[in-house]
Amino acid sequence: MNVFASPLGDLYLGSAQDGLHDVIQSLAPSNVIVIADNNTASKCLPLLENLIDISGGKVVISPGDQHKTIDSCEVIWSALVAAGADRSSLVLNVGGGMICDLGGFAASCYQRGIRFGHIPTSLLAMADAAIGGKTGVNYEGFKNYIGRFEVPAFIWIDPVFLRTLPHRDLLDGLAEVVKHAVVGSRGLWDTLTLHSDTTSIDWLKIIELNTPVKQEITTADPLEKGIRKALNFGHTIGHALESHFLHTSQPLSHGQAVTYGMMAETKLSRITGRMGNEDFHAIIGLIERLLSPSEVTLPSFKDLQPWLLGDKKKSKGVTRYSLPDQIGSCSWDIIVEDRLVAESLDWLSTQVRG
Amino acid sequence: MNVFASPLGDLYLGSAQDGLHDVIQSLAPSNVIVIADNNTASKCLPLLENLIDISGGKVVISPGDQHKTIDSCEVIWSALVAAGADRSSLVLNVGGGMICDLGGFAASCYQRGIRFGHIPTSLLAMADAAIGGKTGVNYEGFKNYIGRFEVPAFIWIDPVFLRTLPHRDLLDGLAEVVKHAVVGSRGLWDTLTLHSDTTSIDWLKIIELNTPVKQEITTADPLEKGIRKALNFGHTIGHALESHFLHTSQPLSHGQAVTYGMMAETKLSRITGRMGNEDFHAIIGLIERLLSPSEVTLPSFKDLQPWLLGDKKKSKGVTRYSLPDQIGSCSWDIIVEDRLVAESLDWLSTQVRG
Repeated sequence: MNVFASPLGDLYLGSAQDGLHDVIQSLAPSNVIVIADNNTASKCLPLLENLIDISGGKVVISPGDQHKTIDSCEVIWSALVAAGADRSSLVLNVGGGMICDLGGFAASCYQRGIRFGHIPTSLLAMADAAIGGKTGVNYEGFKNYIGRFEVPAFIWIDPVFLRTLPHRDLLDGLAEVVKHAVVGSRGLWDTLTLHSDTTSIDWLKIIELNTPVKQEITTADPLEKGIRKALNFGHTIGHALESHFLHTSQPLSHGQAVTYGMMAETKLSRITGRMGNEDFHAIIGLIERLLSPSEVTLPSFKDLQPWLLGDKKKSKGVTRYSLPDQIGSCSWDIIVEDRLVAESLDWLSTQVRG
Repeated sequence: MNVFASPLGDLYLGSAQDGLHDVIQSLAPSNVIVIADNNTASKCLPLLENLIDISGGKVVISPGDQHKTIDSCEVIWSALVAAGADRSSLVLNVGGGMICDLGGFAASCYQRGIRFGHIPTSLLAMADAAIGGKTGVNYEGFKNYIGRFEVPAFIWIDPVFLRTLPHRDLLDGLAEVVKHAVVGSRGLWDTLTLHSDTTSIDWLKIIELNTPVKQEITTADPLEKGIRKALNFGHTIGHALESHFLHTSQPLSHGQAVTYGMMAETKLSRITGRMGNEDFHAIIGLIERLLSPSEVTLPSFKDLQPWLLGDKKKSKGVTRYSLPDQIGSCSWDIIVEDRLVAESLDWLSTQVRG
């Protein structure tokens, strides 16, 4: 079992059997309330039940990002009231990014903030969502518009849960791993390029390499005033696409949206003269090999623009992008002309058109 | 104009004409959204309109603690979305404690937290609610159960707004001033005892003496792990009474509830042998002279107990009290036998029975 200590929450990587019980005991909670979704309640919780005394009961939320809402928060808050949760209680979030974001936010507002731990069960949550202290819910179609920066009491990553995941969900998490490599880790990048597809990937090794990258960047800049903005690479256009498709009959997963977002924003970096041709082709090539972007009909720039303008990363009415300069390095707060964003989206459309 | 600097938010005391505009300008907000209630929108905002460029519009909430809810938060969040509020926006809360608590909480969760300033318009908000970084809303009848500790960008106290207040509202604020005197300031106490009733009180002077007391205690212990708990004097029984009466046809104001709460908890301090007879009579005497507790039929201990047990100040299932030892000094985290709490309530009932 590895421990990665951080002011943003100590992270344990290894079997939950090897110490989760002790970590919870050391927090001396007055009671423990588990937040899960229907899938993790049936597939993941049974693997933990001998390790956690769920004295405050469990709250089971419907899965899917469309349930990451204030309404779901209220379900949790009412359960906390009913369980007599107090300032010494502990909320345990057992699930993917949606459950970690939702349960973390609900806990961080209950009685002005009680402790919570993350037990991420998806690769996306293990590689990204559970690390760094961001919590929140969607609001009026905008991603994570209501939320808090709040540090979990701990994060326990047990790779056993990866066995419960369909391949599509692994790709969702891998998209964030690719992002971490592109913006901040040549070492992680080199490991990823050893693979021509995902079948040969050693997921534990990927998580071990990925965790310090995310943790170091977020610890250096917890409130996203500077370098943490690098992690928004792929997410400005990605979130806009995710919001757009959320209102259609075919919503995108977060990983798919980020995959498209990284492609478009890598193109943006190229056509603004920021990135050389070699790195551009290397990044697009790796994304196409490992993340298998699905064929899709993309919206026009005009249709996407309202969602781009609603992005939290805009400042004073202007959308700002985080764009890689070369593999392993990224700049942020970059303002780009609309016509270049439109050109990138046009290029992406031809790449992924069915 | 006096400035009281603090890590919990710099506090300005004086006419808003003497610098509010400059304070807002120095924050360089991308836009400004005002939160008010119907009363403060009509009576107070006109006095500020030449000082604030309300570029993001105003949100007007129905007055009263029953509207300090997640629903009202959603009204504010939707208005912020509609105004295109971003991470550089500024929310200005113009109102009493309810508006400051509500608007502060809504701002502290919008896009993971944007800046807000308090312009308190009631004595209660000037003397207490706007100082110290507590924000929140009521939930399922429990006071401030959903909220955050969050520091305002500034607090501007302009005593001109006291002219808009009915006498009953002044008493609500004075209850918190009396609390500050009892738990932490012999000097404030001595000034209060100069008055045989409220007609001769110089409110500006009272605010000037009160502000540093509240600010010093909260700055010393922002997260309420120790000495800040002294400020809960009167509020354990007070909040329980407030919650109880919220569910009747005759809700209590916060100030009335705290007045009763301070009387019962002073009695509790006396009968637990903590406080001497002289201070007990002095405190009860001052409360009766200055706060004029109304006649009321109080609930029994048994009826009040569920609300006492739901109080946030309980820890591990036990209600803890903050009880003054003598005038100007207070202890906290005190566990008291139920029969003594019942005895205090019985005594209070005979004091205030109609």
